[in-house]
Amino acid sequence: MLSAEIIAIGSELLTPERTDTNSLWLTEKLNEIGIEVKLKTVVGDDAGRLEETIKDAFARSDVVVTTGGLGPTEDDITRACAAKAVGKNLILNETLVDEIRARFQQMMREMPEINKRQAMIIEGAQVLSNPHGSAPGILFQPTGDKFLVILPGPPREMKPMFENLVLPRLREKAGEIVVKRRVLRVAGLGESAIDAQIAPIYTEYQNPQTSILFNRSEVEIWLTAKGSSEQEATSLLNEVGGKISEKLGAAVFAQNGELMEEIIAKLLTERQQTLAIAESCTGGLICERLTEIPGSSAFFIEGIAAYANAAKIRSLRVPAELIERHGAVSAEVAEAMAKNLRALAGTDFTLSVTGIAGPGGGTEEKPVGLVFIGYSDALQTTHRRLNLPGDRHLIRWRASQAALDLLRRKLLKN
Amino acid sequence: MLSAEIIAIGSELLTPERTDTNSLWLTEKLNEIGIEVKLKTVVGDDAGRLEETIKDAFARSDVVVTTGGLGPTEDDITRACAAKAVGKNLILNETLVDEIRARFQQMMREMPEINKRQAMIIEGAQVLSNPHGSAPGILFQPTGDKFLVILPGPPREMKPMFENLVLPRLREKAGEIVVKRRVLRVAGLGESAIDAQIAPIYTEYQNPQTSILFNRSEVEIWLTAKGSSEQEATSLLNEVGGKISEKLGAAVFAQNGELMEEIIAKLLTERQQTLAIAESCTGGLICERLTEIPGSSAFFIEGIAAYANAAKIRSLRVPAELIERHGAVSAEVAEAMAKNLRALAGTDFTLSVTGIAGPGGGTEEKPVGLVFIGYSDALQTTHRRLNLPGDRHLIRWRASQAALDLLRRKLLKN
Repeated sequence: MLSAEIIAIGSELLTPERTDTNSLWLTEKLNEIGIEVKLKTVVGDDAGRLEETIKDAFARSDVVVTTGGLGPTEDDITRACAAKAVGKNLILNETLVDEIRARFQQMMREMPEINKRQAMIIEGAQVLSNPHGSAPGILFQPTGDKFLVILPGPPREMKPMFENLVLPRLREKAGEIVVKRRVLRVAGLGESAIDAQIAPIYTEYQNPQTSILFNRSEVEIWLTAKGSSEQEATSLLNEVGGKISEKLGAAVFAQNGELMEEIIAKLLTERQQTLAIAESCTGGLICERLTEIPGSSAFFIEGIAAYANAAKIRSLRVPAELIERHGAVSAEVAEAMAKNLRALAGTDFTLSVTGIAGPGGGTEEKPVGLVFIGYSDALQTTHRRLNLPGDRHLIRWRASQAALDLLRRKLLKN
Repeated sequence: MLSAEIIAIGSELLTPERTDTNSLWLTEKLNEIGIEVKLKTVVGDDAGRLEETIKDAFARSDVVVTTGGLGPTEDDITRACAAKAVGKNLILNETLVDEIRARFQQMMREMPEINKRQAMIIEGAQVLSNPHGSAPGILFQPTGDKFLVILPGPPREMKPMFENLVLPRLREKAGEIVVKRRVLRVAGLGESAIDAQIAPIYTEYQNPQTSILFNRSEVEIWLTAKGSSEQEATSLLNEVGGKISEKLGAAVFAQNGELMEEIIAKLLTERQQTLAIAESCTGGLICERLTEIPGSSAFFIEGIAAYANAAKIRSLRVPAELIERHGAVSAEVAEAMAKNLRALAGTDFTLSVTGIAGPGGGTEEKPVGLVFIGYSDALQTTHRRLNLPGDRHLIRWRASQAALDLLRRKLLKN
C-alpha cells in the first residue's frame, strides 16, 4: 500500500482563526484509491522549515502533496523550497510565461513582472496547467516510484487539478486496492473494558485495521479494510464488525457511525410510536438532540424542561411533598416525572432526567454527577441511578446519552 | 521571540472526517504570550514517523506541544515515541498509578491493568496532573531553554492542563512582548455591512490588528494588540474596541467573546428576573443553551418544547382554532405561545419560537427558514418574523440566537 503525506503551506494557516481543509478532501481522494495518508503538516513562510519538511516527507513517503504558496508575492516560497528539497534547480519555462501573460491579457490586464515567478519549474518536472488561476502546479516524479505533487492553495484551483491531472496517474500506481471504513459506536462501556473484550478478536486480523477512539462519552470502534474489490473489503468489514458486535452485544448502538438520536428516531419511526421527555438538569438537551433529526415530528411530541421545582410541580404534577421528602434529585421524583408526563402527553414512552450537573449544588450525600433517569411505558415505570464523571457540559451530555440508551435497550427487548 | 511547533497525534485525525482543532486554541494561547507557531503536524499511529517528527521539532523549536495518544490502549504511542525522540527511558511512576486507581474507585470501578501504561513518565520529566481524565501530561525541560509538553487529546482535559500548569512557565520564559486579544461579537448585522461601517476606524491602526470573522450566525471582530506591557496592549484594545462598539451600537452584544446565553444569564441574574421558553422548531435548543450556563437556575424556570400541535394546545393552551386559522407557523401562534406560557409559569419574560427548519415541510407561502419569534412581558406581547438562510441545523441555531437577541435588546431598553 502506498503512503502519502500532505503539506499545507501558508502563514494564515498557522493563526488561531484558520485551519487547513484542503487536506481533508485530499485524504478522501487518496484513501479511495487505497493510498494511506500517514502525516499532515502545516507550515508557514519559514523557508528552512518548509525545505526540511518537504525533504523528510519525500524521503519516507511514496506520495507527497503540497498545497499553497504558489502565488507571485515574496512570501510564496513553495517552488524554491521544493526545488532545494529535492536537489534540483528551478528553470524558467518560457511556454508558461506566455500562457500566464495570455491569461492576463484575457482579463485586459498586463502581466506584472513578478508573475514570471509562477513560471519557474523544477528541473525535470512536469507542469500541471491551471485553467482556474494563474499558478500552475508541478508534478515531480524522478524515479517513477515517488511523486511530489505541488498544487495551488485555493480549493477551486487545487481540486480540478488534482482530480484531472494527478489522480489518474496515482491510481495507475496504486493498483487495485479499495479501502472501506466502518464505525461502530458503543454506549455504557469504557474504552479499556471494550478493549479487553475485543482485543482477542481484532488482534487476529491485520486487515481490517481496528482502532478504538474515545469521543465525548461514546467509544467508537473504527474498522478500515483493504481489498482488491469493494466486495472483498465489505466482506472483511462484515466479518470483523460482526464478531465485535456479537461480543459486545446491545452495547453497540450503531453499526455505521450513526448518532444515538438517529437510532432512536429510526426505531420509533419504524414502530410508529411516540415519545415525550421531562428534563431537569439536562434542561432541553435531549429534546434538542432528537429534534435536530429531520422528520422527528413523526415520533417526538413534547418536551418539558422543568428546571425549577415550581415547574416540576406545575407542568409535571410532581407532588410538592414528594420533592420535599426525597429531594428533586431522587429516584422517586425521576419516576414521577416520567410517569406523569406520559399520562399528560399520551405518548407510548417517556424519559426523564433529574440530577446535579454542577459545578455548584453538590452535597456529600448527593454529589455533582449524581443523576436519576426515569423511564415509563404502558406496562412499567422504572429508573436508573448514575454517578457521572466530568464537568457540567459532560455530565449533561452523558446523562442525555444514558437516557436515550435506556430507551433504546427497552425498545430492543420489545 | 520564541518559536513553537504543535503535533497532533491520532490516526482519526488523518481521516477525511476529522480535523485537529486543539492546535487552534493552543496557537491562540501561545500567540497571546508572544510565542509564534511555526509548524503544525498531524501524525497517526506510525511510531517511526511520530518519533522523527518529535525529534525534528524539538531540535529546531523552543517549544514543542503534542496532543493526544495518551490513552491506555495499544495504539496510544505518544509516551514511548517521545521518550525515544529525546533519548530517555520511560519509568513507571507509582504515585501516579495510585492516583489513576483512585479515579477508577471513585467511579466504583476497578482499574484495568492496561491503565498502568498511563503512569509511564519520561525519565527526568515532570508530571502534569489531570483532574479531568485518567491520562496525566508530561513536561520535559532538559535545559531550561527547551520545552517538550505532552498533553492529552480531549480538549476538556488538554485546555485546563495547558492553561494552569504550562502557560505560566512559558510566560516567564517568553518575556517582554505582550499580545492581547479581544473578541467583539455582533448579532443582527452581516459581515460586509459591519466592514463598511468599521473599516474607516480600523484601517487607521496597524496595532491592534483587526480581522472580521464569520462564525455560524455571528460575526466576530478580532482585535489583536501588541505592547511592551499588559497595560499598553489593553489600552490599545480599549481605544479601538471602544470606537468600534460606539459605531455599531446595540448590535455588539459581547465585548469579551461571551456567548449570547452568558449575556442573557448575566442580565437576568443581576436584575433578579425570570424567564420561561416555549419552543417549536428549535425543539429545546434555547433551553439547552441557557441551562448550559452554571447558575442558570437563578433565572430560568421552565421550557416547553411543544413540538406537536397537540402539545401546543395542551401545554401552552394555544387554541386549536388559532392553529387551524393561521397555521402553527404564524405570528398569532408565536404570540399566543409566549403570552400563555408567561401566565402559566408566572415569569417576568417569555420567548417563543415557531418556524420551518426543513429540509421538508416548506411551502411556497411558508418556505423553509420562515420563523416567528414571540416575546412577552408584563406590558406587551409582540413578535418578529424572520427568513433565515441555511440548513436545518443553522436555521435552528439562528432562530435561537435571534430569540435571545430580541430579549437582550428589550432588557437593554428597560
